[in-house]
Amino acid sequence: MTAQTSARRGRFITLEGGEGAGKTTQIQRLAEALAAAGIEVMTTREPGGTPGADAVRALVVTGDGDRWDSVSEALLMYTARRDHVLRRIRPALEAGTWVICDRFSDSTMAYQGYARGLGRDWVERLDTLVLEGFKPDLSLFFDMPVEEGLKRAGARGGPDRFESLGLEFHETLRKAFLDIAGREPDRIAVIDALGTPETVTARLMDVVTQRFPEVAS
Amino acid sequence: MTAQTSARRGRFITLEGGEGAGKTTQIQRLAEALAAAGIEVMTTREPGGTPGADAVRALVVTGDGDRWDSVSEALLMYTARRDHVLRRIRPALEAGTWVICDRFSDSTMAYQGYARGLGRDWVERLDTLVLEGFKPDLSLFFDMPVEEGLKRAGARGGPDRFESLGLEFHETLRKAFLDIAGREPDRIAVIDALGTPETVTARLMDVVTQRFPEVAS
Repeated sequence: MTAQTSARRGRFITLEGGEGAGKTTQIQRLAEALAAAGIEVMTTREPGGTPGADAVRALVVTGDGDRWDSVSEALLMYTARRDHVLRRIRPALEAGTWVICDRFSDSTMAYQGYARGLGRDWVERLDTLVLEGFKPDLSLFFDMPVEEGLKRAGARGGPDRFESLGLEFHETLRKAFLDIAGREPDRIAVIDALGTPETVTARLMDVVTQRFPEVAS
Repeated sequence: MTAQTSARRGRFITLEGGEGAGKTTQIQRLAEALAAAGIEVMTTREPGGTPGADAVRALVVTGDGDRWDSVSEALLMYTARRDHVLRRIRPALEAGTWVICDRFSDSTMAYQGYARGLGRDWVERLDTLVLEGFKPDLSLFFDMPVEEGLKRAGARGGPDRFESLGLEFHETLRKAFLDIAGREPDRIAVIDALGTPETVTARLMDVVTQRFPEVAS
């Protein structure tokens, strides 16, 4: 691992939420706001983010929907995440850079743990084995009614493998994210994702500046 | 999963050992002996054994030696193993077929757990998460001095990535396999792999017929 430098460690912020919740737009806006406050920022996304993680990602997102069972899928997600954390996220944080990541461990908990039935305990045990306690400093869950999210995602283009899983699955996911957030209120903030992008950014920046006063100053 | 059929469940036998220990030859001989006793047999090998496991295997065996850290490598091995067990080994066993597999979980324990330093506990916890207690009925460890094994492997052709890791690494591996065997004497038998193939087969069949009397009858 990269040695700890004299720079102050960066903050690790993850964004989560269903399809169409506007994460991509808000990540750009958050990165711009942090940069304007003089903070070095790196944005990235999962699954992927390093050559190794991208190779694993290719295994997960291609092929039939039943190519992997839920256990194998969770293992692949965590293999990619391990590489991403070890080779990109943690070195950046240790160099003082803030890292904003589109999806992280909470996605695996919601998708494989809740919606695919592996259970909270199973995913937590895998997380502990693989990440050894590494967690985001702040996670922002973008929440909106499922029908609205799918309408927005549909307007953007064809559905991907996860988007095409049906209304009930996405309702389960939404409930999962809200339940996960309720269990870790210190780390996770739920952001109402309805409204204009500007309104949502204002909500998001309220949470970020409250949590990290150095952003406002 | 495939439903339990009326056939008696097959036995799952794994073969382990360092390079040049003669596993490939002995697997063929064991399969022939079982078939001669009227037993339906399937042979397979790890990593690989299903399309999914082969795709994961390709990630592990290609690229630089430091492409993956030891945790990622163990995760990939277990992703491949999960697929192999779920889609090939367990259905065969449930249909009454005996399965002989070249390398299995004990290899990950020896390579990543002992030689790569992840530790016994880490690999056991991953094994429990992924295989949910599924273990071989019998594991045969082919043991010989490291110099002799490497000499034989070298005579066969160029070394692969693991063969080229040096004498000390292979000594560590041999000690690891012997330690693993010592902890589970009911499941694991150490077979002296020195001598002619016929001599080694005789030793092997002694163990197999003692453990599974139906083979001798």
